[in-house]
Amino acid sequence: MTARTFTAEDYAARMRRAAEAAAASGLAGLLITPGPDLAYFTGYRPPADTERLTMLVIAQDRDPVLVVPRLERPDAEHAEGASAIGFADWTDNEDPYSLAVRLMGTRGRFGVADNAWAMHLLGLMDAAPQTSYAALSRAMPMLRAVKDADELERIAAAGAAADATYRKILKAPFAGRKERDVAADLADLLRAHGHEQVDFTIVASGPNGANPHHEAGDRVIAEGDAVVLDFGGLKDGYGSDTTRTVHVGGEVAEEVQRVHDLVREAQQTAFEAVRPGVACQDIDRAARKVIADGGYGEWFIHRTGHGIGLTTHEPPYMVEGERNALVPGMCFSIEPGVYLPGRFGVRIEDIVTVTEDGGHRYNDTPHELAFVA
Amino acid sequence: MTARTFTAEDYAARMRRAAEAAAASGLAGLLITPGPDLAYFTGYRPPADTERLTMLVIAQDRDPVLVVPRLERPDAEHAEGASAIGFADWTDNEDPYSLAVRLMGTRGRFGVADNAWAMHLLGLMDAAPQTSYAALSRAMPMLRAVKDADELERIAAAGAAADATYRKILKAPFAGRKERDVAADLADLLRAHGHEQVDFTIVASGPNGANPHHEAGDRVIAEGDAVVLDFGGLKDGYGSDTTRTVHVGGEVAEEVQRVHDLVREAQQTAFEAVRPGVACQDIDRAARKVIADGGYGEWFIHRTGHGIGLTTHEPPYMVEGERNALVPGMCFSIEPGVYLPGRFGVRIEDIVTVTEDGGHRYNDTPHELAFVA
Repeated sequence: MTARTFTAEDYAARMRRAAEAAAASGLAGLLITPGPDLAYFTGYRPPADTERLTMLVIAQDRDPVLVVPRLERPDAEHAEGASAIGFADWTDNEDPYSLAVRLMGTRGRFGVADNAWAMHLLGLMDAAPQTSYAALSRAMPMLRAVKDADELERIAAAGAAADATYRKILKAPFAGRKERDVAADLADLLRAHGHEQVDFTIVASGPNGANPHHEAGDRVIAEGDAVVLDFGGLKDGYGSDTTRTVHVGGEVAEEVQRVHDLVREAQQTAFEAVRPGVACQDIDRAARKVIADGGYGEWFIHRTGHGIGLTTHEPPYMVEGERNALVPGMCFSIEPGVYLPGRFGVRIEDIVTVTEDGGHRYNDTPHELAFVA
Repeated sequence: MTARTFTAEDYAARMRRAAEAAAASGLAGLLITPGPDLAYFTGYRPPADTERLTMLVIAQDRDPVLVVPRLERPDAEHAEGASAIGFADWTDNEDPYSLAVRLMGTRGRFGVADNAWAMHLLGLMDAAPQTSYAALSRAMPMLRAVKDADELERIAAAGAAADATYRKILKAPFAGRKERDVAADLADLLRAHGHEQVDFTIVASGPNGANPHHEAGDRVIAEGDAVVLDFGGLKDGYGSDTTRTVHVGGEVAEEVQRVHDLVREAQQTAFEAVRPGVACQDIDRAARKVIADGGYGEWFIHRTGHGIGLTTHEPPYMVEGERNALVPGMCFSIEPGVYLPGRFGVRIEDIVTVTEDGGHRYNDTPHELAFVA
């Protein structure tokens, strides 16, 4: 199944909605540099984000304009949403910041893409000292958080591809192989199931499992290891991200089984808390309470989840202090874990979307501790 | 040949030199987020640059400290330069900006990595309103520009690998194949010659050659096409970047040959201008004058070159207005081109380093128009 191509009208509608939301937030406009926000608004994904300024200016009372280096303009004009925007190009001997300020105006507060280069922000501040700025995820944290039907379809398809990857890797040999070899298998499988980009393939065996962001390395996986598998990337431009903890051989230490049961219960409890109107931090609290009550609260050392969409890591965050409420169409991970230094780790992660009356999982492989050979 | 591993003492020396240069530039310190600057100072290359703040604080009168998310600390502690820095970690329910400000101090002007996220810079500005900031490439443009002997050795090896790639691709079939298939060959060859990362493989045939940053696409290459091949990436952490324009079949249109001769002369003239003390903009002027005198000045639509090192694109830039002088050990591209819309393009590019009395090329494949089948 190939996803429907987004049209220039889709992009135009996104920019209109964002301009209205920006105005409602007291912003004079939005400044969008290469990355997921620019892809969201225009479909343009330049091959690299560089010292040459590329920036979409969405300001009130004027049509959106892309500031772009002249030598990149031909590519930009081929973006899916190109017909919905104007272009203002500049050459290497011109100042792109004064060009941008002519489009923005010299006053007002602007939302700027989180990942815009500091160099570019400082260039704008110099060119227009009376402007001020707010990071887009602070000013408008829910800008891309609610997905439309076409986006949900892509996230569902990416999740299904990740699940197919997991089912295949269960049949692969683990004992006696290096973590990095299993990670290479995961990457190959994600690509074979339609991912155009692999973002991470964590294979954290035995004591390495206690490092949540462990990079697969040279450790040889052994009988009796718990192994955390956390993998994902982009399929048709939208993200997958799932984690399961497997066990090499059937003889499971009592504490590994107990911790796994606890993390599974925490994941399920957090999932059951999902419904419109609930604060993001309450999803975190739901998972955390189960693990704390089980006596392992000290070892759950990260937030419970993050949004997913055009990237595998974005707002909304399921973390203490995040009071924004869940809205139907939001998509995020629920991924509690327990990490015992020098011993082992356990994490279980699904991508979830908010429905009208609850939550729906985009990963449906079993949560029970699976055994591998 | 494998490059020597940089030691913690190498990294410590780089940080000391940078701290002294920062003080001489009136900066209270340097703030370095993930990317080539962080790799330069610490050897640490986190797998992703995210919304979670990772930032090296190099301030006067104290040892360098890396602000790092707790769950990424184990990886950071394995960096080559880890023993030369301290660590200050934070968890998801803590504010990383106030932590950073405790290390930076609440006043003073700081140099910040060009590619630091705007979100992080705005977070620091909020946490310490009396601090101010300058982009590192503005405040200290030559910070990484002068390479030491070990770095030069790596850049030379990367250039040799790119040259070997070019020699191989000359034997590949061109006519009847899509640009993207030749591009895939180039990527495979770069990897086969030791590149761990491929940054770009431009194959711009016929009229596509008139777009300097053309992405290889579905166009089928034909007899009589001029084809711009521009490819590079990282080998042992250091960059390659070379361009040659080839011709499919031996019957060359008179203007293609004339433009190619002109670009070749411009490249050679700019190369011969390289020596210590010459301003970067004079390298640009040298190439530009040849092309202007030849009647094609209007169609040389980009600067003449860019620095190379831990990235394939960095200061110093060979561009009008860049008055910094060349210093022995600097490495950069010389890549004049002529782009005739709807018709064809020509570019020739070598990586060059500044020696005590001139310049030395790290690419040595012939500049003459080569013929492919």
